[in-house]
Amino acid sequence: MDRVHALCFDVFGTVVDWRSSIARELEAALAPVGIATDWAALADAWRARYQPAMEEIRNGRRSFVRLDVLHRENLVLTLEDAGIPGRDEATLDHLTRAWHRLLPWPDSVAGMTRLKRQFILASLSNGNVALMVNMARHAGLPWDVILGAEVARAYKPTPEAYLRTADLLDLPPHGCMMVAAHNDDLDAARAVGFRTAFVARPREHGPCQKTDLTAAPGNDIEAVDFIDLAAKLDC
Amino acid sequence: MDRVHALCFDVFGTVVDWRSSIARELEAALAPVGIATDWAALADAWRARYQPAMEEIRNGRRSFVRLDVLHRENLVLTLEDAGIPGRDEATLDHLTRAWHRLLPWPDSVAGMTRLKRQFILASLSNGNVALMVNMARHAGLPWDVILGAEVARAYKPTPEAYLRTADLLDLPPHGCMMVAAHNDDLDAARAVGFRTAFVARPREHGPCQKTDLTAAPGNDIEAVDFIDLAAKLDC
Repeated sequence: MDRVHALCFDVFGTVVDWRSSIARELEAALAPVGIATDWAALADAWRARYQPAMEEIRNGRRSFVRLDVLHRENLVLTLEDAGIPGRDEATLDHLTRAWHRLLPWPDSVAGMTRLKRQFILASLSNGNVALMVNMARHAGLPWDVILGAEVARAYKPTPEAYLRTADLLDLPPHGCMMVAAHNDDLDAARAVGFRTAFVARPREHGPCQKTDLTAAPGNDIEAVDFIDLAAKLDC
Repeated sequence: MDRVHALCFDVFGTVVDWRSSIARELEAALAPVGIATDWAALADAWRARYQPAMEEIRNGRRSFVRLDVLHRENLVLTLEDAGIPGRDEATLDHLTRAWHRLLPWPDSVAGMTRLKRQFILASLSNGNVALMVNMARHAGLPWDVILGAEVARAYKPTPEAYLRTADLLDLPPHGCMMVAAHNDDLDAARAVGFRTAFVARPREHGPCQKTDLTAAPGNDIEAVDFIDLAAKLDC
């Protein structure tokens, strides 16, 4: 690990617990106006539109737009599908920005604070810059630098999302370690030369999660949380 | 000021004292091998090549390259001009990266820490991302986000350098305030709709400085340092 200078973090699911944060925000906005539903399932339905929306951009059928735009479009479709009557613009804006207010996993801030002593901490998320800045201020995430999809103009797992991030850090790919709870993200980073660390987040999708419970082969490190990652990186 | 959400800072001269830092680094690297010169004048000579080198890129005669590249080319030319014999690659690399190790003015960190409570703090420098990240870690600068020339692919005072920064922050230009010790930077930011704050740095160019001693007309705020700026912004 002696040539790794920067840790590049996936954020949604790896640093922050999007599902319970979004479920809570949906309930807080919609329950007072008489809507009753399974809020976690509604959060899952909103999130289910995330990859297909980015895929339109990855495959070139649509020009790059920031994730806030996709989140808002997907929210409208999700509420329609759920039979929840049309909401006013202010509510749609407020809920779209719920992704700026996601809360970290309990170990995230403490682990990152330890890791920051020794490594540059970069976000390498599909979230846009303003989203990541607002989230960091809200959740106390100690980033050194906000990078990722919007700066690279490419959504993960497109190779350019990783390679442009390494280039902006003025590091070779092997000088960067991708940290993620998702095997597909780590596979894509490893394919372009990044080192990789799998951090298990077995409750990201709730109590019945079936995916990403264990690491696929080939990672440099496997950790149970960010404190464990810090220990394994001698921080 | 109630619609200003982000403070966008010029860095060289405004946040950090490049001249005394560079003079000290040049002396530390070159005096031990027998070179004697006016180190502050040598720092000035290096810096004098900064604007002309960027101008080749601003006017389209050269593709965008990051500032580290320009700093290194300019160092070689500066040493040649000064009659200082050819240095080895390691020394040239070390001195180029002296710009990553510039020290802040005494009020910078304290002032930024106060300002950060209320505003997003973004770097909007011609320095490249890796330079800004390393400088922040070295000097303890509490940025929320590193933006500026390399991310915008345009050197100040090109309008795109400011406008792309505001766009990445998802703010209109009038939601951003440029903070700088240089009237030309503030004029260019104001011309594209930014609010502006002049912070006097009357020793940036040494004890005989003649430029930028006072603010040109049109700024929203004039301050004597970052503590004064924080007070004037009610932080």
